[in-house]
Amino acid sequence: MKDYIFKLRMAVRDYECDIEGIVNNANYLHYMEHTRHQFLLTKGVSFIELHRRGIDTVVARINVQYKTPLTSDTEFDSCLNVRKEGVKYVFYQDIYRVEDEKLCVRATVEAVAVVNGRLAESPELDMMLK
Amino acid sequence: MKDYIFKLRMAVRDYECDIEGIVNNANYLHYMEHTRHQFLLTKGVSFIELHRRGIDTVVARINVQYKTPLTSDTEFDSCLNVRKEGVKYVFYQDIYRVEDEKLCVRATVEAVAVVNGRLAESPELDMMLK
Amino acid sequence: MKDYIFKLRMAVRDYECDIEGIVNNANYLHYMEHTRHQFLLTKGVSFIELHRRGIDTVVARINVQYKTPLTSDTEFDSCLNVRKEGVKYVFYQDIYRVEDEKLCVRATVEAVAVVNGRLAESPELDMMLK
Amino acid sequence: MKDYIFKLRMAVRDYECDIEGIVNNANYLHYMEHTRHQFLLTKGVSFIELHRRGIDTVVARINVQYKTPLTSDTEFDSCLNVRKEGVKYVFYQDIYRVEDEKLCVRATVEAVAVVNGRLAESPELDMMLK
Repeated sequence: MKDYIFKLRMAVRDYECDIEGIVNNANYLHYMEHTRHQFLLTKGVSFIELHRRGIDTVVARINVQYKTPLTSDTEFDSCLNVRKEGVKYVFYQDIYRVEDEKLCVRATVEAVAVVNGRLAESPELDMMLK
Repeated sequence: MKDYIFKLRMAVRDYECDIEGIVNNANYLHYMEHTRHQFLLTKGVSFIELHRRGIDTVVARINVQYKTPLTSDTEFDSCLNVRKEGVKYVFYQDIYRVEDEKLCVRATVEAVAVVNGRLAESPELDMMLK
Repeated sequence: MKDYIFKLRMAVRDYECDIEGIVNNANYLHYMEHTRHQFLLTKGVSFIELHRRGIDTVVARINVQYKTPLTSDTEFDSCLNVRKEGVKYVFYQDIYRVEDEKLCVRATVEAVAVVNGRLAESPELDMMLK
Repeated sequence: MKDYIFKLRMAVRDYECDIEGIVNNANYLHYMEHTRHQFLLTKGVSFIELHRRGIDTVVARINVQYKTPLTSDTEFDSCLNVRKEGVKYVFYQDIYRVEDEKLCVRATVEAVAVVNGRLAESPELDMMLK
C-alpha cells in the first residue's frame, strides 16, 4: 500500500450491495465523499459549517477505476492524498479491502471552491493542505 | 444537443439533493445506470435476466465531468451512445437540463461482461449494439 | 383500487433493489416522499421553495406495511390521500404494482410544519388540502 | 437510556442529509437495517450467507417515530432488542444522539423468514434469540 495522509476504515453495509451481491458503483462515490469530509474535519474544516458561511466545495470531475468489487461483510480502508493545482483541489482516493490489502477502487476527484455562487479561492479550504 | 441513440427524460427527486440544494454527485451515476438499463430493455436485454443466467455487466471505469448542477423541481434528459472497443462497452452519457438544454454532466462509462465470474464476450450483451 | 386524490406512476430502478432482488424497504420511503412532493407541486406548493422561506415539512411518524415486494423492470402506481388532524398532516400512501393492481405497500405518514425551527401552523402548507 | 442487547455506534455521513440539513427519513431505515445485520453477525448469522442458502429475512412492517433529527458531524448509538412473536421477529430499535443521549428515533420492525419463497420457521434465524 502506498503512503496516504488520511485513512478511514469502514465496513460495507448490505443495502449498498445490488442484486449482483457487490457494492453498487455509485456507492463508492459516497464512501469517497465521506472520507474527504472526515479528512477535512481532522483539519478543523467542516463541510457543513463552510456551507453555512457561503463556501461550497463542488466536485468538478471524477475518474474512477473499479478494480475489485467489494462485497457484504467486508471491511475496507478508504485512503486519501490531496494536492492543489491552480484553483482545483485534486484528491487521490484509493480503497483497499482490509483482509488482503487488495486495491478495489482507484480514483481522482477534482473539486473547487464556490463562494457565494462563484468559483473562488478559499483560504478556509486551503487549511486542508496544511 | 448532439445525436444520441437513446434518451430518457427524468425529474430530480428532492431526496437526491444534498444540503447545498444540488443533486449529490453520486446520484448522477444512478441516473446513468438507470438510463443504460432502460436502453438495454429497448434492445430486449434485461440486466436482471442476464444476471440470473450468470451474465453480469460490471462497470470497470467511469469518467464524469460535472458542468452545471441539477437542482430540485428540474427535468433532465439523460442521453446515451455506445460503442464496443475490444471487450469493453464504452457508453457516452450526457445529461441536459430540459428547460435550456444546458449540459449538466458529460461522462464515459466503460463496462465489461463477466460470465460465471470471468471476463468474457457476451453475444447477449452485444445485442445492444444492433 | 381505492379512490385517491393523487397518483404517480413510477418504475423500479435496478439500483433500488438489493441482493434479494427486491426493492430495499428504505426505498419505498423515497418513493413516498417523491410522491408527496409531486402532489404538493400540483397544488402550487414547492417543498424547496417553502424551505427557503423558513417553512420545513418534517416527518414525525411513519407506519409501513410491506405486502408484496416490488422487483426489477416493474412499474407501480404510488397513490395518496391526505387529511389534517390537529397540527398534523396525515398522508395515506399506497403503492400498487401496475400489471395486476396488487397492493405492495400500505403506509401512513404523519408530517408537521416547522416554521423557523418551531412547530407551527402553515397556511402555505394548508394549500395542499384545498 | 434503556437496556439493549446490542448497540452500534455510527456517525452521520453528509450525503445522508437533505436540503433541510437533517438526515433524510429513509436513511434511518438504512441505519436500522445495518444494525440488525451487524447484530446477526455477532450471533454467527450472516444475512447474505442465509440468502445464498435460500433463507431470506423480509421486513413485513415498520413503525417509526421521528423524535429529534440527526444532523451532520454527529455520532449516534443505534440500539436494538428483539423478541419472537409467532413467526415474526419483532425488533425494537432506538437511535440516540451520543453527545446528550437524546432519543432521535424509536422504531419497531417486524420481519419474517421466507424459505425458498415461502413464509417459514427458520432455526438458522432463531439463533439470534439465543
